[in-house]
This record gives sequence, C-alpha cells and structure tokens, in this order.
Amino acid sequence: MSDLDFFFKPKSIAVLGASSKPGKIGYEVLKNIIDAGYEHEIYPINISAEEILGKKTFKSILDVPNNVDLAVYALPAKYAPQTVLECGKKQVKGIVIISGGFKELKGEGIELERRTLENARQNNIRIIGPNCVGILSPKGKFDTFFQPRYAMMRPKPGNISVLTQSGTFGLSILEWLAEEDLGVAKFVSYGNKADVDEIDMLKYLENDPETEIIALYVEGLKYGRQFAELAKKISKTKPIIMLKAGRTAKGARAAHSHTGSIAGNDDVFFGAMKQSGVIVVPEIDEMLDIIKLLVLQPRPKGNRVAMVTNGVGPCVIAVDEIEMTRYLSLAELKEESIDKLKSFLPDYCVFSNPLDLTGSAQASWYGHSLEIIKADENVDIIMPFFVFQDAPLSESIEELHEIMKKINDKEKTLVCIATGGEFTETQVKRLRENQIPSVFPAKRAIEALNKVIWYSMYLQKSEE
Amino acid sequence: MSDLDFFFKPKSIAVLGASSKPGKIGYEVLKNIIDAGYEHEIYPINISAEEILGKKTFKSILDVPNNVDLAVYALPAKYAPQTVLECGKKQVKGIVIISGGFKELKGEGIELERRTLENARQNNIRIIGPNCVGILSPKGKFDTFFQPRYAMMRPKPGNISVLTQSGTFGLSILEWLAEEDLGVAKFVSYGNKADVDEIDMLKYLENDPETEIIALYVEGLKYGRQFAELAKKISKTKPIIMLKAGRTAKGARAAHSHTGSIAGNDDVFFGAMKQSGVIVVPEIDEMLDIIKLLVLQPRPKGNRVAMVTNGVGPCVIAVDEIEMTRYLSLAELKEESIDKLKSFLPDYCVFSNPLDLTGSAQASWYGHSLEIIKADENVDIIMPFFVFQDAPLSESIEELHEIMKKINDKEKTLVCIATGGEFTETQVKRLRENQIPSVFPAKRAIEALNKVIWYSMYLQKSEE
Repeated sequence: MSDLDFFFKPKSIAVLGASSKPGKIGYEVLKNIIDAGYEHEIYPINISAEEILGKKTFKSILDVPNNVDLAVYALPAKYAPQTVLECGKKQVKGIVIISGGFKELKGEGIELERRTLENARQNNIRIIGPNCVGILSPKGKFDTFFQPRYAMMRPKPGNISVLTQSGTFGLSILEWLAEEDLGVAKFVSYGNKADVDEIDMLKYLENDPETEIIALYVEGLKYGRQFAELAKKISKTKPIIMLKAGRTAKGARAAHSHTGSIAGNDDVFFGAMKQSGVIVVPEIDEMLDIIKLLVLQPRPKGNRVAMVTNGVGPCVIAVDEIEMTRYLSLAELKEESIDKLKSFLPDYCVFSNPLDLTGSAQASWYGHSLEIIKADENVDIIMPFFVFQDAPLSESIEELHEIMKKINDKEKTLVCIATGGEFTETQVKRLRENQIPSVFPAKRAIEALNKVIWYSMYLQKSEE
Repeated sequence: MSDLDFFFKPKSIAVLGASSKPGKIGYEVLKNIIDAGYEHEIYPINISAEEILGKKTFKSILDVPNNVDLAVYALPAKYAPQTVLECGKKQVKGIVIISGGFKELKGEGIELERRTLENARQNNIRIIGPNCVGILSPKGKFDTFFQPRYAMMRPKPGNISVLTQSGTFGLSILEWLAEEDLGVAKFVSYGNKADVDEIDMLKYLENDPETEIIALYVEGLKYGRQFAELAKKISKTKPIIMLKAGRTAKGARAAHSHTGSIAGNDDVFFGAMKQSGVIVVPEIDEMLDIIKLLVLQPRPKGNRVAMVTNGVGPCVIAVDEIEMTRYLSLAELKEESIDKLKSFLPDYCVFSNPLDLTGSAQASWYGHSLEIIKADENVDIIMPFFVFQDAPLSESIEELHEIMKKINDKEKTLVCIATGGEFTETQVKRLRENQIPSVFPAKRAIEALNKVIWYSMYLQKSEE
C-alpha cells in the first residue's frame, strides 16, 4: 500500500489533456516534463493534434501502444470519472490530477470527486490531487508543474521531502531551496487529497532512504490521531517540520474553501503535534530557517549561545531575543577563555558575551577568538555577527573565509548573522559554499535555534 | 542650539588622523568623503605624510590656512581632549568622533569622555559620538563612514532620517534603503552620544524640511520624559519609528557595555512611547517594512483588508495572521461586488475574501477584480498575492504591470505579496518602480500594516 515509487520514478508518463497552446496548463505540464530531461516515454493525449512539442499524440490513453505507469490529468474536472476508467483499462498505477473544480467548489464538485475516487479504487489506481501542482522528483528527472522553468527554479536532488496541500506554498519553498542550493528528495502537492494524503506519504517517506527531513504544509488533517502516532515514530530519526494554516475561525473557513479541509481544535492539535516531536512553525520563513540549520549544521548539544562581533548593536537586540526564548541561553564564557582573549586582543574590545571586537576587527581577530570560543565547554552554539562593510574586515575578507572554513568542523553548531547589500550577499554565498548558514535578522536565527533545541530535548527525553 | 546644519552641510571638513594605509579607519573615512563627491575643501591632518589620496596634509588642524567647519576624529581616544582644544582655537563648529575607547570601556574612558566634552562645551563645539560611524548626508554629498563604497551601498537623497546608537544597525538600514531605492535626508550614528543626542536631533529634524519620516535605534534614553514630549509633538506630522534594544536585563547589560547606556523600565518606557505616538518595533525588518509602506503608499483610511490571489495557500495563513492582529480585519466584500466578480470570472473561482482566481488566472482577471475591489466601500487595504510562476500569469506579465500601474492611484493602500526566485524578483522590482511595495511573507506586511493603523488611529484620537 505504501509503495508509491511509481509516482516518483515512473517508467512512462501520459499527459491527459496535453495542449499545443503555450500558457495552457496541458501545454506547460508537458513542456516541463520534456524540459526536465525525463528519461522514459512521454505520451501526450489530445483529441485533435497530431503532435505536440515534437511528441506524437494519441486521441485516448487506450491508443497508447505501450504500458503507462503514471498519468497527469489536465482536463476539465467533469471528464475525470470516465478518464479514470480508461486509465484502469490501461493498468495505469497512478494519476496526478492537476485540475481544480472538485470538492473545493462544493455542490456537484463533491460528487465528481467521489466518483473519480471510486473509479480509481476499483481499478487499483492511486490519485494525487485533485486541485494541486503535483509532483517534483529531482532524481526521477520530472515534475508535473504548470510553472514554466523560466518563471520558477527547481531544486537539485537532495534529502528534504516536502508535502503540501497548497501548491503555492510548495512553489515558494522549492524556489527558496533552489536559491539556497539545498536539495529535494520527494515533493508532493496533493491539494484536495482525495486519495494519497499525509498518512500515505509519511509511511512512504519513513522508508525512503533519500528522505532525511520532512517539511509539511497542512490545512486540515482527516486522521489526526493516526498522523500523530506515525509522526511520533518517524520524528525519532527524521525531523518533521509543520506549518499549520487555519488556526483561527476565519482562517479555517478559508482553508475549507481552498481544499475542502476541516481544521480542528488548535490547542488539541498543537498539543498532539508536540507530543509527537513535530516542529510546528507559524510561517514559511521559520520553516526555511530550520531546514537550513538542520541540513547544514550539527544539532546543538546544548542551548548556550556565544556571539562574536565587529558591530555590537544587532547583538544587543539578539541578547534580548535569546533571553525571551524558552530554550536558549547566553553562554557564560570561562575565565580562562576571557584571559586568552585578552592576551591578544586590544584592550578596547569588550570581553563579554557578545564579545565585541569593535569596528577595528580584522579577520585574524575573529580567527583567534572563534578558536577560543569553540574550545570553551560553556558554549554549544557559535554565532558570529559580521559587519563585512567595515574596512578592516572587508580588506581581510579572503583570510576570513579561510578561517571560517576551519572553524566549521561540525563539532559545534555555527550560525552567522550578516546583513547588507551586494558585497555582504557575496560573502554570505561564500560562507554557504562552505556549508555555513547565515540568517538575518538575528531574531530569525534565534527562533529557529529555539525550535531545534526543543526538538533535541524531545528526542533526549523520549530516549530516556 | 538646535541648528545643527553644519554637521550635514559643512563648508569644509578636516579629517583628524587621516592615514595613508588602506584598511585604517583614518584612510577609509578620508577616501569616502572624497569619493562621495563632497564639493568643498577637505583637509587631511597627519603628522608625517605630505599628501594622502592626492590631498595636501597638515600636521595640525591649526596649520590649515582656512576655516574648518567640521572635523572628523579618527585618532586614538587619548588625544581627544587636547585635539578638541585645538579645534576650538580653529573655531570648528562640530566634531564627529568615530574612535572608540571612551565611556563604553568604563575606567579611564569615562574621564576621557568627560574631559573631551568639557573642552568642547567651553569652545562652543558640538560633538557627535564618540564610538560611532557618524554622519551620512546625501544632499551634502559626504559621509564620515569607514565602510568602503565597494563594501557598502549608500542611499540616494530622500525624506527618511535615521538616528542610531548602533553604527552597525545604521549600516544595515542604509543598505536596505539603498536596495529598495528609498532616499535619506539625514543619518546620524551617535554611539556614546556624549553631546548630540536624540533630543537635539529630534528638535533639529522637527524643522528640517527634508525630513518626513524618522527612524530611531535606541539602547537607552537619558531624558525619557523630554524625549516623550518632543516625540508627541513631532509624531503629529512626521511618523517616528523606534527600535528599542536592551529590553531584558541581560540585553540592558549588553547595551551598557556597548554605548554606556542605561536602559530603563521597559513597561513604563513603552507606555510613554505609545502615548507619544511613537511606532515601536521589535526588529529591523519590521522597521523597514513600515518605512516602505509609509513612503510608497497612502496611510490606510480603515483597517479592512481584501486579498486577491492565484494561489490561495499563503492567503489562508494570512487570514489567520490578520485575525490574530489587534487592529486589522478581513473585509466583507459587498454583495454587488461579488455579483460583478461572478459576471466575468469562471465559476471555479472562489468568491470570498481571499478571492481565489485559481492558478488559471490571467492578468486581465486581476485587472477586473482589483477594479471592483478598489471601488468596494468595505475595503481599505488591497493586498494582491501573485504567484508569478503560474503559466497563465507569467505569460501575461506585461499586461499585469500595466494594470497594476492603473490600480495604484493612491486612493487605497496597496501592498503586494509575492515570493519566488529570479523571475519573481524581477516582477517585484518592476512593481516597486511603479511605487507599489511587495513584502514576503504576508506576516511581515500584516504586522507592518497593523502598526501603521495603530498610528493612524492615534493621530485621529489626538485630533478629537
């Protein structure tokens, strides 16, 4: 039941409702499958065209001479029940229904979705959707999106799997992952989730060797208790990060018109998620920050943060923010660390946490200081703030990158804070190339760390 | 007393401690003044060099043959009291002391700062600093920064003035303003603020015709009550946005080591700020979002938000977020608006707020819908969400920009939400060129709007 490999590594794909008109969903889906470099047969199904995008078309899926593993549905909703029957005759294993016009519209749409599902079940076909953007499978070299590649970047293959009820949410997270050069294992946007849902996908991802981190956008869960039990098992080895929409009465109503979901009681839901070790976040930016930390850095072994800076203002705000979190705390540097720092730094530096190297700081000052702080047993998380704009630092920038590469030995969690224009962005990218994450403003790093530490503590407790 | 024009439009500048070594603060400051295109005489003061960066140097400021309006101090702290006396003889009006090593170091530093100030007062010299990055005056065509121009962008002239105790905070906000193509009237980073402080600057900016919006970063206020009274007067015509650091005990301690400031009781302080109409924010991103809204858009006439989208997921989260704010509410579209929308949109659209045009939406669908929503008396704030990646929209993108230009007639507040990679960023920039702000994620727009509405309500009440 939970072997859904045919969705991600299909041996052939048919596009039902392939179109020859750019801008039409049936055209864009076909074009994207071709352009992604899908390595097996693609069959466009269209009643009138002979050929689309250089591919021979077929009037019906029944006319296709070979087996079809996966079908992508881009026709109007009303043809769905009948088309599913035809797919059944063709022994199609899965259908991704991109089209809307089903349960989310209420009225007839509900019946249409029910009949479509019934026909699929009778024919042993699994369905993703309807009302979704479907699948991205970087290893399978295809996606079912109608977003042209010039308008939307795709991430490389990697270890993050994303499950989402909202296609738009999915696109946002995928483009961000692509920009951050982070890779995706499996992506599913299931919209109304008539058939394949979180439960199916979690079961599948639990045993998927490619997947190490699971990110979910949820509007409503049909089987809350089952989900919680499954999540509890999986979160022990694969962190699950969830963004839950529909937390207010009006938000729940909006979710209902969106995907026909019914959001439950929030307090009960969030309580259950916490007990299952699910990291719940309120917005997409926090989800992304947490993913970045989990992929690039070791999980912190404790909650004590040490800051080093050449411009202390934003650190003062960060101190406030650390103090206001539930789980983080400011590290108290050991006296011997302070003594060592004093032995080589000028006396106008401020020897506390944050350690203020002042605007005169050169790369080497960071180098020595970070070595000492890294060796300090009172420190779990190292958070350097960089004002790359300050001349002494910008003039020794090459040295700084060499230093940071050495500091980042994955013994302790390292997160940098930096902000600025082009020059700063270049440095942030170079840090990233060495697997060092940067976040701005500090609040974002701190909130993400706070959740990650909560998760580590959860794992520790559940081991006891 | 409050005429501080000589700081921003000096008729000549001396750099005390000008250096011929790149990377040294005394070199970078001089280079930046020259490179900014400062239009009057510049005098580098250096005991050994003959010439630096093509400018004749002088051993002492007393050797300069002409008047000196403004001096920038980049020497070690210990020379400050004596140098100020020399500036006095030369009838210098103001000194910007960039160097650290004063009160923030405690011990001798306190006495050094006291003596420096005493000498300045006796000689009728105003001081900005010490321990700061000083001044940016886009109209005066100079800055006193030691951040090279290749490493830090400067904003154009404009209507925003920025006062900050933290230089780093200042640099961050300036580069962000530059990236967003927003302009600055006066910028002052005063660090330890031995002399010129918020009170002086507020008095000055109150009557500065260039300044329409004031942004402040504050670690501690010496004259809280006086500040509150002044802010109350000014905020009636010029919005004041404040970021306050040192809100926790440890944060206050960090602020004290940073600039020697003493942060007071938070509740009392924030209460006073609210009564003075000051918009208080917790982090720099919110400050920036509010500035963007205030500069580019009319202030909302009410609190009712209408959303239009071609991908509703992020809107569902936004509904939750609106519901959780104190001042915003979801607009209830009038029945006649809904009827008009239904007359031209396909029936699979979702006719509520958010109005879901679905992934099939073309530019024209947005055009018609936004016209109707703009005319709806139940709507104060229009918030379109764009999934630019969706083919029907990306294929009609030119038309969309024409439409948005027309919609943005400054009758109602317009804020767009969009996220994505390069293609989306290009569209966001094009919207911005037409004075339309975009923010992501929606939470940021909503939090900024919430504060702006609070401010509008404050003004309304104080008029009654």
